[in-house]
Amino acid sequence: MGYEILKEKVLKANKELVFRGLVTCTWGNASEIDREKGVVAIKPSGVDYEKMSVNDIVVTDIDGNVVEGDLNPSSDLKTHLELYKSFPGIGGVVHTHSTFATGWAQAGEDLKCYGTTHADYFYGDVPVTRGLSKEETEDYERNTGKVIAELFEKGYRDYLATPAALVKGHAPFTWGENAMKAVENAFVLEEVAKMAFITRSVTKSTFGLEQHIMDKHYYRKHGKNAYYGQKTKK
Amino acid sequence: MGYEILKEKVLKANKELVFRGLVTCTWGNASEIDREKGVVAIKPSGVDYEKMSVNDIVVTDIDGNVVEGDLNPSSDLKTHLELYKSFPGIGGVVHTHSTFATGWAQAGEDLKCYGTTHADYFYGDVPVTRGLSKEETEDYERNTGKVIAELFEKGYRDYLATPAALVKGHAPFTWGENAMKAVENAFVLEEVAKMAFITRSVTKSTFGLEQHIMDKHYYRKHGKNAYYGQKTKK
Amino acid sequence: MGYEILKEKVLKANKELVFRGLVTCTWGNASEIDREKGVVAIKPSGVDYEKMSVNDIVVTDIDGNVVEGDLNPSSDLKTHLELYKSFPGIGGVVHTHSTFATGWAQAGEDLKCYGTTHADYFYGDVPVTRGLSKEETEDYERNTGKVIAELFEKGYRDYLATPAALVKGHAPFTWGENAMKAVENAFVLEEVAKMAFITRSVTKSTFGLEQHIMDKHYYRKHGKNAYYGQKTKK
Amino acid sequence: MGYEILKEKVLKANKELVFRGLVTCTWGNASEIDREKGVVAIKPSGVDYEKMSVNDIVVTDIDGNVVEGDLNPSSDLKTHLELYKSFPGIGGVVHTHSTFATGWAQAGEDLKCYGTTHADYFYGDVPVTRGLSKEETEDYERNTGKVIAELFEKGYRDYLATPAALVKGHAPFTWGENAMKAVENAFVLEEVAKMAFITRSVTKSTFGLEQHIMDKHYYRKHGKNAYYGQKTKK
Repeated sequence: MGYEILKEKVLKANKELVFRGLVTCTWGNASEIDREKGVVAIKPSGVDYEKMSVNDIVVTDIDGNVVEGDLNPSSDLKTHLELYKSFPGIGGVVHTHSTFATGWAQAGEDLKCYGTTHADYFYGDVPVTRGLSKEETEDYERNTGKVIAELFEKGYRDYLATPAALVKGHAPFTWGENAMKAVENAFVLEEVAKMAFITRSVTKSTFGLEQHIMDKHYYRKHGKNAYYGQKTKK
Repeated sequence: MGYEILKEKVLKANKELVFRGLVTCTWGNASEIDREKGVVAIKPSGVDYEKMSVNDIVVTDIDGNVVEGDLNPSSDLKTHLELYKSFPGIGGVVHTHSTFATGWAQAGEDLKCYGTTHADYFYGDVPVTRGLSKEETEDYERNTGKVIAELFEKGYRDYLATPAALVKGHAPFTWGENAMKAVENAFVLEEVAKMAFITRSVTKSTFGLEQHIMDKHYYRKHGKNAYYGQKTKK
Repeated sequence: MGYEILKEKVLKANKELVFRGLVTCTWGNASEIDREKGVVAIKPSGVDYEKMSVNDIVVTDIDGNVVEGDLNPSSDLKTHLELYKSFPGIGGVVHTHSTFATGWAQAGEDLKCYGTTHADYFYGDVPVTRGLSKEETEDYERNTGKVIAELFEKGYRDYLATPAALVKGHAPFTWGENAMKAVENAFVLEEVAKMAFITRSVTKSTFGLEQHIMDKHYYRKHGKNAYYGQKTKK
Repeated sequence: MGYEILKEKVLKANKELVFRGLVTCTWGNASEIDREKGVVAIKPSGVDYEKMSVNDIVVTDIDGNVVEGDLNPSSDLKTHLELYKSFPGIGGVVHTHSTFATGWAQAGEDLKCYGTTHADYFYGDVPVTRGLSKEETEDYERNTGKVIAELFEKGYRDYLATPAALVKGHAPFTWGENAMKAVENAFVLEEVAKMAFITRSVTKSTFGLEQHIMDKHYYRKHGKNAYYGQKTKK
């Protein structure tokens, strides 16, 4: 009880994933956290997106214990929880098997920042995780979250500036201030993964975007000197 | 008479092939077997999917003799029958010329298991057949079924764990517990064939998914310890 | 007068080109010949497909003189006429700039027969023309027809068995017993050009379909021993 | 006041960009200049295309001072203005991040003229700019316009004959006699960028279209001897 708004937001974000062509079959899920109440709402496991209603959304505590809902939560729940624990500044997480981003994840390479479309949303390359060891598959979903978090430890990267990662041999995860923002990041990631595929196909001699152009574009949209959009008057 | 339900299922599966973009023109067909009654229902040959009605579906016995229906059965009928004979655990067969899976079949290479999207449905590589000899083209459709079955003989592979094959220089066949499940496998095969094309285009140095990740994903969805979806409570 | 049926058929074929995604802007045209009356009906030049009505279709004699219609005929008319003169067994011609077939035409290579989808409609490779010389650009459209016809001279190929060609650096032409059949061939050509692009992208070591499989598939659908579809009972 | 017609045209051109699939999110903008009145109408920055109405269109003078409108103009306004100053013969400018053209811009290579589809609209290769220096990012949008204009200085190219450029590591700009014509050029640029990607993928040994074919196609549609379409009778 009391989780209706959160569940509505999560339902809407999950349906948006299908509408934007990022998810087919049941290959994806969106969640959102209410940090004050200490709960996470997430898609149920293996349920058709078309038939999904707000009552199907599962609410759990931060350890994954179901607080509300009759269905099993997404089997990827533990990955989401791990990301909420590791990245205190985020409010939503999305997982998809979108075609081009997954193609890159399977290649096991960082998605290089080849242009400003990428730099407008993701600062620098979108990193790929290391592979999980055989032992780590014992607690597979939680460890998937851990190898993502590893990429942002020790000041390597800022998870707010690069809100996405590719899990090697698997598929992308994205995040954001809420579930719908994480969906938008998943959408942009798929677009830039497609552009990067084209760039890589037509030339092998690309070195990626220059640092000063990357900075320019990223800070045109983010931070206190941003001047893109309608929020701030120049 | 008495085959109405079987014919309805086969009609629906054939229309689903078009709806999912797996078949254009008349390049594909779905069938289902009723093993108790010893009959197979299949799409008629060269009939438009739009105009197809339940009365157009052809019912034959296991040797291909028409039991019900006024039209010729699909010219690929003998391939379907051969698969039903070789794979006693299946109930439905699908053949398409879907674009990316056919592109791989034409390349004459196994469709490598590059990621978990693939491993969730197909255990290991989706194998490609050897080419048919000139003599084998005499009984072309039956021998197409035989070269597919060869791939699963002598314990090489389990046809239930890898419910698909690529016929070299031709196109894919998939199967499943019924016609609609075979359609789903055909859909997933096309998706993973597209992802594999992207992976192969962006890097030449891929070795495919590690065995322990493949096992993890496959058994997350299949077998007695499966925990994906709503059927079993963790 | 008296050309209404011919004009209706040509209008319908031109609209089908757009419906099937083979033509965008005004990049394409379909025509049909009435050999008894000695006239050809063709799309007008540079007119929107959406607004095109039967009265816009232009009828000319075999030398290109307008017999009926107020608009200029397609600027590619002379190519169509040349093909009707060179290929007495055809009734319809189509020209498109469909994406994948055009990509191959620009590559200046024969579209290799990599599989049975191709062999079901086109016997052997779809050939590419030589480039036109500077002098030949004086009578550009007519000479475009001539270099296509060259490919089928001296018994190299049978224009009925391979009803398509790629004009080097330009785009495809297809033909058939009437305009709508030429549209179908244009559609299949685009599909197999896409499949061939995928095949070529995933492997460089392809040698194309074996001759005996090519023969089997082509003659399964064509000639007196054909057994595909509903026309002949096995 | 008095800018209603100009604003309507610019609104329509911006919506056409979305309808044609050239723009997703808010990644693109179209503008048109009224050279007599000395004003430019342009899309507002970061506003959804669906909700955009004529009153949201911003009108500025040639130096970018807002003359009419309550919203911020597109952050790319200065690039548009620079192009209007450098290219006195144009009336409309369009910027997109369309997928294939952006893929080429990221590759940092001129988009080679591989065929007549390209030559019908763009005379010769569509050039790519040099990268901007760190100092030039200070006045980023204006300097983006300057590096485009550089490509057409000193008689290298005619901006009316080649109405497009790729900004290295960024995306395409196109122009034309008005905003809608610039949209059409953006659409064709995306199509030929896709065709060129296919050509480059299937063969590495392409040298582009011969000069005399390029001339033939370009002048078939442009200049006093043009004979494509309905304007001039042969």
